[in-house]
Amino acid sequence: MTQVFNFSAGPAMMPKEVLQQAQAELLNWQEQQTSVMEVSHRGKLFMDLITQAEQDFRQLYYIPENYKILFLQGGARGQFAAIPMNLIGKKNKALYLTSGHWSATAAKEARLFCEIDEINILDQDPELKINRLDFSDIAEQYDYVHYCPNETISGVEIFDIPKVGNTTLVADMSSTILSRKIDISQFGIIYAGAQKNLGPAGITIVIVREDLIGNARQETPSIWNYAVQAKSDSMINTPPTFAWYLCSLVFKHLLKQGGLEGVEKCNQEKANLLYQYLDESSFYKNNVVKNNRSLMNVTFTTGNDELNAKFVAEATKAGLQALKGHKVLGGMRASIYNAMPIEGVQALIQFMKKFEAENN
Amino acid sequence: MTQVFNFSAGPAMMPKEVLQQAQAELLNWQEQQTSVMEVSHRGKLFMDLITQAEQDFRQLYYIPENYKILFLQGGARGQFAAIPMNLIGKKNKALYLTSGHWSATAAKEARLFCEIDEINILDQDPELKINRLDFSDIAEQYDYVHYCPNETISGVEIFDIPKVGNTTLVADMSSTILSRKIDISQFGIIYAGAQKNLGPAGITIVIVREDLIGNARQETPSIWNYAVQAKSDSMINTPPTFAWYLCSLVFKHLLKQGGLEGVEKCNQEKANLLYQYLDESSFYKNNVVKNNRSLMNVTFTTGNDELNAKFVAEATKAGLQALKGHKVLGGMRASIYNAMPIEGVQALIQFMKKFEAENN
Repeated sequence: MTQVFNFSAGPAMMPKEVLQQAQAELLNWQEQQTSVMEVSHRGKLFMDLITQAEQDFRQLYYIPENYKILFLQGGARGQFAAIPMNLIGKKNKALYLTSGHWSATAAKEARLFCEIDEINILDQDPELKINRLDFSDIAEQYDYVHYCPNETISGVEIFDIPKVGNTTLVADMSSTILSRKIDISQFGIIYAGAQKNLGPAGITIVIVREDLIGNARQETPSIWNYAVQAKSDSMINTPPTFAWYLCSLVFKHLLKQGGLEGVEKCNQEKANLLYQYLDESSFYKNNVVKNNRSLMNVTFTTGNDELNAKFVAEATKAGLQALKGHKVLGGMRASIYNAMPIEGVQALIQFMKKFEAENN
Repeated sequence: MTQVFNFSAGPAMMPKEVLQQAQAELLNWQEQQTSVMEVSHRGKLFMDLITQAEQDFRQLYYIPENYKILFLQGGARGQFAAIPMNLIGKKNKALYLTSGHWSATAAKEARLFCEIDEINILDQDPELKINRLDFSDIAEQYDYVHYCPNETISGVEIFDIPKVGNTTLVADMSSTILSRKIDISQFGIIYAGAQKNLGPAGITIVIVREDLIGNARQETPSIWNYAVQAKSDSMINTPPTFAWYLCSLVFKHLLKQGGLEGVEKCNQEKANLLYQYLDESSFYKNNVVKNNRSLMNVTFTTGNDELNAKFVAEATKAGLQALKGHKVLGGMRASIYNAMPIEGVQALIQFMKKFEAENN
């Protein structure tokens, strides 16, 4: 049986150890003879689980004490709406820095709720590259500034943190959360759908500085009102308990792996290996400038649609799954989130070499 | 090892066969050597799953063709907000029929978005009883009329469908969906959190008549805009794929059990058995008038808080879990959703008899 590696951009690969534990105890969690998904979210055992999960996540990601952590429903797309509902205040205007599909989609959703200014920080000539990130001269006109540090579709990552003076900085970190160390204290809010580095689809983490809680406008659904959820342990209604449980197992797994330092080092190694090979090859091309290459989503193309399709088909047969690029961009994309072992990247490169030799 | 029965009100017991199948294929779904929670929601295999799930659910619940079925995030509490956002129109006012905690909570949330009139249809003297349900004389003032056919906390069920003339009728069926046959065509919208009869917490089903789609106000988050989600197969963003998968297994399981007729007959038998015993006993009391006794949530009390606590503690030890009543009401509550086998109810009654004999 060929070993399979899943390069899906999300829902993405989960750590195998986590799935194995979930499988082993699926019908008998904590000696209760019931599944974790069948027990009350307000029972002692589940409350213990979420307390530990929060502790582990705080420790892993170095989250300062003046930040609350919420576990919500609705995905990052839900937060695209919740952010303006909770943050728009006296200035009645927000600034969205756009760098690709997801930051632009966040801006579009926010426009449903307030006035939005948009600045495209992506330079596309000759390669995808992020422009200047200092907005301290204009930021004070806005209630907040929003950006997306990793554009999953194009594979563009923004490593520098935008300068926004005293204005609140908000980041959609769905595809970069827990992949590397970041200075949380520079952000007002960080949010992320779980389905890349945290757990399965269906749960969304919001890290929010306490002073930003409590200013939601009246017409904010309770489940997204940060004040309501912060006061209720993210349980104003029944939470997605099984997804929460899986996140808790992922946190434990990452701590065991040496925490964020170990994770970041491994992610660097994986990405370096793949980009180095891409740069050496004259057959494949990655269109992102070196300083903005994503650690999580590596895009590449042969420059020929037919050949790309052949690549994806043969890779799938060889056990390298979900390498087709997003339809917006075409080509190929290898998502190498935390759960992807370095062996997966090595197997991909080996296959790429073979394909190059056969098709050059 | 004592056999355990879980009477949790939600997240509730799941069919054992469903959990066993989920366990068996958790790391290798459809021979993909990956988990169903790791594959793309837009891949062919997952799209086939949701197509089949919708077909099975339509067949099970006799859903007419002019209704769309949406699988969303946010729980029923999310829909408490989404309903007014999607339905409030020219009349700018809705009527909420309240009969307990959940219908009142729905009304409170809706008030964030529009003007709400409320009519309490619950008579509490001497027993919990639903009053008249004909609102055809006043309904046309409203964009819609909302009610909750089963109040999970008090165990009150409303079997008759309110008369509202040509006005849209909306029902929160979280704890009654798929428990018995109902004439869908009398409703504009039926919605339900999954965690009682459909699957795990974290996915919400909305059955919506097509003519009600497309009138959402501008400030409606995309993930709850019925038009947007109907056009996107409920995939405007990454859906809670694992929860959706479990729902699909539950639907298959119910069809194998003989569909809704079989399910309803079994639910009737379970409830009859328990209520009959309660009526014969002078030790326990259920406070709901016979015509409004819930098939799903059976509340009872010894009339003595200390004795109730002793009951719950000893029952737990005997493998009868989660019988403590909701804190709002106290006493005991046995939630006997579809997944509870009749053996569970029999075991409960046996325990109740023993406890009565020992403590009377």
